[in-house]
Amino acid sequence: MNSLWIRNVRPMAGAPLDVLVQGGRIAALGPSLQVPPDCAIEEGGGALLLPGLVEGHTHLDKTLWGMDWYRNEVGTRLSDKIDNERAFRHASGHDAAGQSLALAQAFLALGTTRLRTHVDIDTQAGLRHLDGVVCTREAMERLGQQIQIVAFPQSGLLIRPGTAELLDQAMKAGANVLGGLDPCAIDGDPVRSLDVLFGLAERHGCPLDIHLHEPGAMGAFSLDLILDRTQALGMQNKVAISHGFCLGDLAPAERDPLLARMAALGVVLVTTGSASRNVPPLMVCRHAGVTVLGGNDGIRDTWSPYGNPDMLERAMLIGLRYNLRRDDELDVALDCVTHAGARGCGFESYGLVPGDRADLVLVDAQTVAQAIVARPVRKLVVAGGQVVARDGMLN
Amino acid sequence: MNSLWIRNVRPMAGAPLDVLVQGGRIAALGPSLQVPPDCAIEEGGGALLLPGLVEGHTHLDKTLWGMDWYRNEVGTRLSDKIDNERAFRHASGHDAAGQSLALAQAFLALGTTRLRTHVDIDTQAGLRHLDGVVCTREAMERLGQQIQIVAFPQSGLLIRPGTAELLDQAMKAGANVLGGLDPCAIDGDPVRSLDVLFGLAERHGCPLDIHLHEPGAMGAFSLDLILDRTQALGMQNKVAISHGFCLGDLAPAERDPLLARMAALGVVLVTTGSASRNVPPLMVCRHAGVTVLGGNDGIRDTWSPYGNPDMLERAMLIGLRYNLRRDDELDVALDCVTHAGARGCGFESYGLVPGDRADLVLVDAQTVAQAIVARPVRKLVVAGGQVVARDGMLN
Ligand SMILES: [Zn+2]
Ligand SMILES: [Zn+2]
Repeated sequence: MNSLWIRNVRPMAGAPLDVLVQGGRIAALGPSLQVPPDCAIEEGGGALLLPGLVEGHTHLDKTLWGMDWYRNEVGTRLSDKIDNERAFRHASGHDAAGQSLALAQAFLALGTTRLRTHVDIDTQAGLRHLDGVVCTREAMERLGQQIQIVAFPQSGLLIRPGTAELLDQAMKAGANVLGGLDPCAIDGDPVRSLDVLFGLAERHGCPLDIHLHEPGAMGAFSLDLILDRTQALGMQNKVAISHGFCLGDLAPAERDPLLARMAALGVVLVTTGSASRNVPPLMVCRHAGVTVLGGNDGIRDTWSPYGNPDMLERAMLIGLRYNLRRDDELDVALDCVTHAGARGCGFESYGLVPGDRADLVLVDAQTVAQAIVARPVRKLVVAGGQVVARDGMLN
Repeated sequence: MNSLWIRNVRPMAGAPLDVLVQGGRIAALGPSLQVPPDCAIEEGGGALLLPGLVEGHTHLDKTLWGMDWYRNEVGTRLSDKIDNERAFRHASGHDAAGQSLALAQAFLALGTTRLRTHVDIDTQAGLRHLDGVVCTREAMERLGQQIQIVAFPQSGLLIRPGTAELLDQAMKAGANVLGGLDPCAIDGDPVRSLDVLFGLAERHGCPLDIHLHEPGAMGAFSLDLILDRTQALGMQNKVAISHGFCLGDLAPAERDPLLARMAALGVVLVTTGSASRNVPPLMVCRHAGVTVLGGNDGIRDTWSPYGNPDMLERAMLIGLRYNLRRDDELDVALDCVTHAGARGCGFESYGLVPGDRADLVLVDAQTVAQAIVARPVRKLVVAGGQVVARDGMLN
């Protein structure tokens, strides 16, 4: 693997310097580097240098990205959306492999080098969607993009008997993380649902990422059960709560003890910055010590036509949701799709210091805030030390 | 003015047809038009045809668009933002003419052919910002873009004596609409503030557009006073409420009578679809008969780094805010930045039927919903019958 010398870039909008990449890692940063022989050279032109962007929560397997337009006429209940999607995917023979690959490539072209995706596991599809995304993970690994797969019981765990066994198989078949979903609202038996889920996680020694849409007191109840089991099983720093809308509903007196427990147990929170729901208060969560990372959730699927593989746009939407206007506040929005994302998902060797994996994104922007609001074309994307995209297009 | 024949486009995603433009207006639409001699021809290639987009609320005069990045370190109170901006503009000699022109051009390149802009009138700047935007209005008129100017007392009306006289002069100097601002929260004397404002409107026979940020009961109180005066002065169909956040705070029992009065008096509502505040419920307002139009508010200024002259992006943000997912719901989001925008601002001859001004936008999208979520490049923009932009760039 050749060395790469990137000249004249401004890490996080700091002073201009050069970056030397060797063996897929950042070897050195500085104003006057010694350039080794046989080194490929990229001219940064004073561009802003960001670490590779991190997508903390998406659903690559269910996207309709690039397909003919899907006319959404779905009902408003969560169960409408779940049932409609499962039926659609079954009837249409929706191709999880091809679709996830197309979207993962679009992510990479826009600078996302690490990504966590939930993949539907249900008794109708079995492991079909997982198999497709495992292929995508392998293909993208060769391009330097790291994908974590969450085995996700989208249609429920207890309410569709056989799902727990499928999740068990999914973990053996290559999923990295075990997923959960609304133990009260969907599964109807929160204690048994979470006992089964944590039992599986314990058996596989794997992290957990639980979709928790449940509002207010119901969500707080489920969250408490999750925290109890996290503590009892010693799963500190291995559990993520996705959405956690209840934390946006609760009064501080009920919310803050939950946040304190989450912080103590290293339970992280994933947010889309939903504009239409109460959301966990970003700054309060961070001040409580809870890592908050950002994600799209589904992108252009039967649930919703929205979403975009551009994580700078997700940072913008998080910024708009939390009314982050000052430049120092927008640094927090970027953190959600960079460092906090990597920390929350457990992606290693992440960052812009020597020794970190060379996942680099160059954009023409004066500041981090400008990169977020203007979402400029990605001049250069480096993944695992290789130049993989220029001007928004994969090589 | 030559004729223009646009071949093979799909108005609002309907069946493909051709459009004949003559004398700046749509002369005919149909599948097999008689093409006159000396007619310029544009190949639509099956593109989606939208009417020119409408920006219902922005602040062209205060934008920092294209300037060096402004580092936002402003406080959180409304008065912090107002005072900071007035001082910044005074000290920096901020050029309202050049800045408003740059942003208006960016709007046109992205298909916005009609636009309402609020312009700061205060005792420090006098009519300086207005003069600049009047120049922009003239320059853009020649390109076929229609701009309405609202004379806006951003720093308050009563609290800065001399402002009412300046507003009077502003109306004589070319403003089209009289603006107002929070009669309780900013001016501190709602009855006298609104009496002065409506008195000016009556004298000039002009429409009103009032920024109403006041929350809950306070906003409802001010809104009631506004509706009383609208009725008493016979100003039906001439008053707009911008933001109207209070309508997002109130319980239906308090909100719905206000909406009914607004509908009866033809008082319209302008929304940005703010993600971080309670907002008037879009569908409830529409069902009550209230026209709701969309706008950016400020774009990249000392208040906020956000905003974008792409009104399809604004439609997307409105869609996200109101959780509009179905295709028929996204038609409503588009309506906010097209027909409802034109109706709410009183822009005439708007639409896609023969006789309407030929303001046309072509994008490669299968459906209206796709145009909103994907915000594709504007293949062609026609304003007042002239081709003014291609592929996102002004001619
Ligand atoms: Zn999800
Ligand atoms: Zn405004």
